[in-house]
Amino acid sequence: MTFFEKLENQVFSKQTFLCVGLDPVWEKIPSHLPRTQQGMLDFLLKSVNQTKDYAAAFKPNFAYFEALGISGLEVLQELIKKISPEVPVIGDAKRGDVGHSAQMYASAVFESFGCDAVTVSPYLGQDTLQPFFEYKDRGVFVLCLTSNQGADDFQLPDLHLQVAKKVREWNVSGNAGLVIGATHPEKIAAVRKISGQMPYLIPGVGAQGGDLEYTLLYADDGSKIPYLINASRSILYATSGEDYAEKAGIAAKNLRDRINTTRSSL
Amino acid sequence: MTFFEKLENQVFSKQTFLCVGLDPVWEKIPSHLPRTQQGMLDFLLKSVNQTKDYAAAFKPNFAYFEALGISGLEVLQELIKKISPEVPVIGDAKRGDVGHSAQMYASAVFESFGCDAVTVSPYLGQDTLQPFFEYKDRGVFVLCLTSNQGADDFQLPDLHLQVAKKVREWNVSGNAGLVIGATHPEKIAAVRKISGQMPYLIPGVGAQGGDLEYTLLYADDGSKIPYLINASRSILYATSGEDYAEKAGIAAKNLRDRINTTRSSL
Repeated sequence: MTFFEKLENQVFSKQTFLCVGLDPVWEKIPSHLPRTQQGMLDFLLKSVNQTKDYAAAFKPNFAYFEALGISGLEVLQELIKKISPEVPVIGDAKRGDVGHSAQMYASAVFESFGCDAVTVSPYLGQDTLQPFFEYKDRGVFVLCLTSNQGADDFQLPDLHLQVAKKVREWNVSGNAGLVIGATHPEKIAAVRKISGQMPYLIPGVGAQGGDLEYTLLYADDGSKIPYLINASRSILYATSGEDYAEKAGIAAKNLRDRINTTRSSL
Repeated sequence: MTFFEKLENQVFSKQTFLCVGLDPVWEKIPSHLPRTQQGMLDFLLKSVNQTKDYAAAFKPNFAYFEALGISGLEVLQELIKKISPEVPVIGDAKRGDVGHSAQMYASAVFESFGCDAVTVSPYLGQDTLQPFFEYKDRGVFVLCLTSNQGADDFQLPDLHLQVAKKVREWNVSGNAGLVIGATHPEKIAAVRKISGQMPYLIPGVGAQGGDLEYTLLYADDGSKIPYLINASRSILYATSGEDYAEKAGIAAKNLRDRINTTRSSL
């Protein structure tokens, strides 16, 4: 089954457009948990277990695991193995390198870590994205317009639109998507016009304060999976108490419901 | 000692502007070597040992190590530990992610892996590069104009010049550099005008066929370290025989000498 088929199954069986981001940092993990590789893995697995009924996908961010050293990457590998295979995993790795190196990164994310999808950076152009697109059963979300202040430096005013246009052209296997920050809801409409129907991975609704209503309004393309709304910290660190996993589950359910209510009111 | 001080020491004590890239792939490694983690590490350490008299820096490409899975990353960590501390190591990781994730990547490359410098992608803007720049004793090479065909998609005609301009502005700690492919020698002059004095990391002279003479001519900025010329496969895989390390040493010496001869003829 391809990434997008898996995703569609999840979106419809659970009635959810929520993607739960997994960004582990010791400083935020409840203090009663042991500061060990197993402690980290348990924290993530319990959080996954309590949120999985509301999550269309999970998105581990490679940066956080790499910062923990080799043992962090072992946690990542174990974690992905233990997430139920019907729930797709988006490896948020933001990779981007020339030809053969890109093949190596695709192999690492898709084969060594077993991710169903990946995030990649477009700066180096088509031949550096192609090795990812060639994994036709995997999803490839290309950075387009990000939710941080630095989006002003190069992405705006035009580059993100060029990226959307090119990714549409390059999407011959139908496995591409775009990463678009919710902090620019008014710009999402313009990207949507250019990209056509294509799933968006949308961060920035939670801690970064993007407007959910306008984001959903402008991102919708009339297709079955127009977008995934990602939230990481607001779910994973809903509380620092011993009931962290239950609270993560409640936060995930609440956001799923808020997305659905907002969708039905548009 | 900072990265650039280390680099300067190497450049002048060894009279070399050569950076040796370390891109391990089993298919290219001499067949007599055992296909084990130790076999890979030995291959790299012997190659490093035979080329180090001609190398101003080593540049392991993270993609190749990640493609080998966790054990590949263990090789990378061991390798970096075992390279003499006076020879700087550039972690070719091409990372780029928003704020806190960028901090995590900087911590991974500089602290967990112990690299002296890193390559990063500019697409997400200043706040995503800042966490790297803040390691003032480390070097940060920002992708500007790459040596692959895809450079045409977004970097040309103007974006790479905007990147050069911005990186110059952002370089308040004096630890920035640019990655510029040798396959565009005529464009290097334009970038140099905009960037001012700043070290360039220049791939593409070896296997990709960039013109060495024009590259050196246009990249020179009159400073002590205007550039590093990187070669990876043409050195590491100079032969597939048992004398791979000696041949790598000869290839490194030859390229160092060719760079120096060309420099003195300009």
